[in-house]
Amino acid sequence: MTTNTLRPQPFPAQEYVARLQAVQRRMAERDLASLVVVDPANLYYLTGYNAWSFYTPQCLVVPVEGPPHLFARAMDAQGAHHTASLPREQVHGYPERLVHRPDVHPYDWIAARALEIGVLRDDPGSQVAAEIDAHYFSPRGFFALHARLRHAALVDSHELVNWVRLVKSPLEQETLRAAGQVTERVMRIAIEQIEVGRRQCDVVAEIQHAQALGAHQIGGDYPAIVPMLPTGETAGTPHLTWSDLPLVAGEATTIELAGVRHRYHAPLARTVVLGRPPHRLSSCADAVSDGMLAALEQLRPGRTGREVHQAFASTIARAGLSKESRIGYSIGIGYPPDWGERTVSLRAEEETELRAGMAFHVILGMWMDGWGYETSESVLVTDDGPELLAHVPRGLTIKE
Amino acid sequence: MTTNTLRPQPFPAQEYVARLQAVQRRMAERDLASLVVVDPANLYYLTGYNAWSFYTPQCLVVPVEGPPHLFARAMDAQGAHHTASLPREQVHGYPERLVHRPDVHPYDWIAARALEIGVLRDDPGSQVAAEIDAHYFSPRGFFALHARLRHAALVDSHELVNWVRLVKSPLEQETLRAAGQVTERVMRIAIEQIEVGRRQCDVVAEIQHAQALGAHQIGGDYPAIVPMLPTGETAGTPHLTWSDLPLVAGEATTIELAGVRHRYHAPLARTVVLGRPPHRLSSCADAVSDGMLAALEQLRPGRTGREVHQAFASTIARAGLSKESRIGYSIGIGYPPDWGERTVSLRAEEETELRAGMAFHVILGMWMDGWGYETSESVLVTDDGPELLAHVPRGLTIKE
Repeated sequence: MTTNTLRPQPFPAQEYVARLQAVQRRMAERDLASLVVVDPANLYYLTGYNAWSFYTPQCLVVPVEGPPHLFARAMDAQGAHHTASLPREQVHGYPERLVHRPDVHPYDWIAARALEIGVLRDDPGSQVAAEIDAHYFSPRGFFALHARLRHAALVDSHELVNWVRLVKSPLEQETLRAAGQVTERVMRIAIEQIEVGRRQCDVVAEIQHAQALGAHQIGGDYPAIVPMLPTGETAGTPHLTWSDLPLVAGEATTIELAGVRHRYHAPLARTVVLGRPPHRLSSCADAVSDGMLAALEQLRPGRTGREVHQAFASTIARAGLSKESRIGYSIGIGYPPDWGERTVSLRAEEETELRAGMAFHVILGMWMDGWGYETSESVLVTDDGPELLAHVPRGLTIKE
Repeated sequence: MTTNTLRPQPFPAQEYVARLQAVQRRMAERDLASLVVVDPANLYYLTGYNAWSFYTPQCLVVPVEGPPHLFARAMDAQGAHHTASLPREQVHGYPERLVHRPDVHPYDWIAARALEIGVLRDDPGSQVAAEIDAHYFSPRGFFALHARLRHAALVDSHELVNWVRLVKSPLEQETLRAAGQVTERVMRIAIEQIEVGRRQCDVVAEIQHAQALGAHQIGGDYPAIVPMLPTGETAGTPHLTWSDLPLVAGEATTIELAGVRHRYHAPLARTVVLGRPPHRLSSCADAVSDGMLAALEQLRPGRTGREVHQAFASTIARAGLSKESRIGYSIGIGYPPDWGERTVSLRAEEETELRAGMAFHVILGMWMDGWGYETSESVLVTDDGPELLAHVPRGLTIKE
């Protein structure tokens, strides 16, 4: 058998070196001896490791100086070199007998091994940080890790790696643009497919087909969230997945989906109505379109998340509308169950200054009682202003 | 707008009553005053609640007597009645300002509210159990919950609800059979699509299309795990997702996917080789086919997971093969990132006796250095013996 099925690495080695250095610099500033990285998006960011293996415990232990080590289930560690930019001696597999057992936990083995190697430091007065609000790090895992540390304090990482991910490198920006090309093609197909009498699952079938196919030479990757298309009365709630009911004349469907390239996401939402829209829907759509323009105008280096939110809120207020939830969040790498980066939100409380290279999903979801309207843009912040990652007509699509 | 887009409830109300009673009976036996249920599969099992909302904290708090209450982000709580068999007054939404904040946590609000309602009991000497090894329950969430409990001990649920799910009701068995019909159709399409020169992502596009379409009147639901098709050298590692590289003549591809109906999964794996297989692959496939027959023969009420494993292990040992990891696990409801139930495994250490109504994914993955072979069956245990949920020819598929 030939060997040319090995994965092309989406980023060169020096990109990973720079990412690790940025993390270790912040660790030194915060006086952290070691950092336990659990979020699959952070693992991918720091090493390129990419597999659907996050349903059993796995982590990267980063010392403040020196190389990080990856710990995973034995069957996954064995193939980690296919994607991770780590030499084999920096990858360790815990035995199968530790998987899904009530009395033992993989983090006990991981902590012992990491201490032995020296990447996990347990010196008196030192601090070890862990991602204690990340998906896929359970309290049981935390307690097993904690029990192995006799001297060091175990503290909250406060999403240290997520914050390093916030400003994207030029290569990451290129990857986001490629994701945007996929999004554009997928959303156009999704809008075409919304027709009276089609089952929701039939529309999703075409969306998922397009998501994997990608755009021309750009193969598609899987999204962190499945396509969502709340329809009719259920359009008043944002996160319902599809059913096999048919689409009904007169009803509106909101579509939220993402095109993905090498785990980078460009999400997009649009609303389609099958027939003449009721006045409340079309006037809501108009106000939200104005609000989007006002928000985009603020998406520039030096502005804050609060200012972006304020521009939107004051615009839709003129139409008598308001929105309680945030209107966007930072995007980049995503793994199920979320494509948000969990750092900057576009909301009233957000004082972080925007910088060129950040990327946001500006999502204007108006979830009303028994109906809803949604539109969004994935946007790169540049020195020249906001750059849309996908170009799809923004307003309410009316199909009569 | 009409209201006929409301979801058909896959199970009648009395099914949920029986499920809750079974959970509360076990709680009483273990002297638990309250149980905090976090796993989305357990939420769905107990209430029917079904949305892609598990990326922010949500839980069902079950008192040992009386009705359970659901807690979720406000925007999700608002639409929970579209799927959950709970009256609105048993659903509570926490405010948006608590989402993704470093200084506050939704579980602080949830615990306070649940105490106020009385479903979370904090009496001296009492015990509250939580799912402390579930996905989507972070250490920060745990600490916020713990801080609100002044008197009660917070203990490990030890997957109490998962164990109640183990034996399926007649209606659940029907749903698993419907999932199996979807699986059968999807796997046949997947095998057809494996051709020299096709990109992996093109094959996945057809698989995902078929997964959503379902089988005739049975619409497909989304799988807890995306289709996996490790190919060539990477077939030696189980959980790699697809790339956009083309399939190569002479190489083997392992396909693992699931058909899904109303969140119930029937996973299946097969291996296709594009050309004449090397001897090591075809002899491995033959030995594993014999091993599968031996394992299925043991999948009967009264046998243990250990006996099933033993039958497989001793059969493949005759061909000089061995397998370290478990050869199967209990299945039913699944949410990302896993379709396993996290209870009974088919392995040497498993002494649980099988009963009619249990369901297993018997997965025989042989991950070698630089190649691999995989085949599996989703099986319902019945009084008459094992019932396959999908019928697809089992051995190595050779396409020359």
